[in-house]
Amino acid sequence: MRKKIKLISIAFAIFQTAAAPSPKSPNDILVEAPKSAWAQIKPDNIVIAKLSDESEFIFELAENYAPVHIANIKKLIRSGWFEKASIVRVQDNYVVQWGVPEGTKLPNDIVQKPPAEYEFNKPKNFKPFPYKDVYAPQAGYLNSWPAATDNKKAWLVHCYGMIGVGRDMAPDTGTGGELYTVIGHAPRHLDRNITLAGRVIFGMENLTARPRGTETLGFYKEDYSKIGFKSVKLASDLSENERPKFEVLKTNTKTFASWLYAKANRGAPFFIKPSGAVDICNAQVPIRKVE
Amino acid sequence: MRKKIKLISIAFAIFQTAAAPSPKSPNDILVEAPKSAWAQIKPDNIVIAKLSDESEFIFELAENYAPVHIANIKKLIRSGWFEKASIVRVQDNYVVQWGVPEGTKLPNDIVQKPPAEYEFNKPKNFKPFPYKDVYAPQAGYLNSWPAATDNKKAWLVHCYGMIGVGRDMAPDTGTGGELYTVIGHAPRHLDRNITLAGRVIFGMENLTARPRGTETLGFYKEDYSKIGFKSVKLASDLSENERPKFEVLKTNTKTFASWLYAKANRGAPFFIKPSGAVDICNAQVPIRKVE
Repeated sequence: MRKKIKLISIAFAIFQTAAAPSPKSPNDILVEAPKSAWAQIKPDNIVIAKLSDESEFIFELAENYAPVHIANIKKLIRSGWFEKASIVRVQDNYVVQWGVPEGTKLPNDIVQKPPAEYEFNKPKNFKPFPYKDVYAPQAGYLNSWPAATDNKKAWLVHCYGMIGVGRDMAPDTGTGGELYTVIGHAPRHLDRNITLAGRVIFGMENLTARPRGTETLGFYKEDYSKIGFKSVKLASDLSENERPKFEVLKTNTKTFASWLYAKANRGAPFFIKPSGAVDICNAQVPIRKVE
Repeated sequence: MRKKIKLISIAFAIFQTAAAPSPKSPNDILVEAPKSAWAQIKPDNIVIAKLSDESEFIFELAENYAPVHIANIKKLIRSGWFEKASIVRVQDNYVVQWGVPEGTKLPNDIVQKPPAEYEFNKPKNFKPFPYKDVYAPQAGYLNSWPAATDNKKAWLVHCYGMIGVGRDMAPDTGTGGELYTVIGHAPRHLDRNITLAGRVIFGMENLTARPRGTETLGFYKEDYSKIGFKSVKLASDLSENERPKFEVLKTNTKTFASWLYAKANRGAPFFIKPSGAVDICNAQVPIRKVE
């Protein structure tokens, strides 16, 4: 049977050698969370993508963290741009990418050469993460987004499921017309080199379980042919009862603190040695669909 | 055009803020590597698994690092055990697992309750990794395997593609009769809690691109039915010309040092800001198939 063990407080530790295991699993903690620990995701940031094989995935736009690219993406969605797109690249342990045939003309009303929205001044609400980070002096959360900082600048980080803006060689920054999502071990070397604009919040398996492309970098041999997009819509452009609804765990709650501690200190009956630490990309803020 | 920039020496740095980008990509460096930088993988550690849908994957056993479980796995292979197995679980961003129907009797000549081969005394040849690790005081390599240490004990780590031994609740340690491979962001919390016994070295996409299981923990609804194993064989049990051949980059070579530096310090024309660091699981030792 599972023994009750007192939670010790989370130390801002570098080496976590003496942490007690959590008496509850991360999932137990979410199941027991009060309704008030969850915040609704705004419909204006939710994008529903239906694919030609009748599967779908849904992503959230990273409001505030890439405003020019995200304004572009919203205009592209409303112009029907992504209905011309298809999945063009599936590279194992790296990314799934979708775009339109080369030469397709961008709408005039988007910013054709957006600024490099790769990083920004560190916001005051940057919430430090209590464990080490390999790629940055400090990991953390910006609202519910996985992030990092060098204490001057801050940036979103390339965790599993994050959506980035495909671009050409520097200094190109991409328009938002071609997007990708991370499907493997976080390629954090892309941080600060590409605009991150969102994350997949539903139906990730409809991207990750696809056949890998056979060409260089996992591109499909026959682009723009197999898996197209039937429709791509913002939830806010749907009627109230057609909108899928999602909630995200608030990071300033007791539930979140317990959940994060439990992620780092797994307990019995399965675990015998808690790691006492967790990677920011293994501690992405929980999101749930609400029926 | 790409500018030539002098390589600076790899510092054993904690924060890598001033590293120069590598003038060559990691892949460029591998392409130019001399034949002598590569070592053959022993046929007695290579396992070829052919699946019922005619796809295959090949894995390498972690010689020396889990001797009791690996001896079991070899006996199980030779007894035909895995021809009774099928893929029973595909959990997105976590693992693909294969096993036999519950109640299948294990051969008598395997160790029924192996020791917990989760960690071992730190070997003298532990090669420290020059960048931070989130889960351990020190990451590194044991021969060509991704590993970590607390300076007393050492252990293999749960990177993408690593193969672990499925087990029941502690103190069960698993027999080797049920195995899994990592298909997402490294679940390093499993380190020191499970025996790692190998890694996939070919055909990983034939595991990762499968439909995710719909039951709890990604188990398939109908176990032992869809994707079975046609044959599972050790390369050393095949005739010399039937054996697939693989080479692994030697970690004590200049090529390896340049490759690791280039992984951490990506350069033009795509990258504008090298991260100056890399995660051990993004720096798994290169392996190639030799025709």
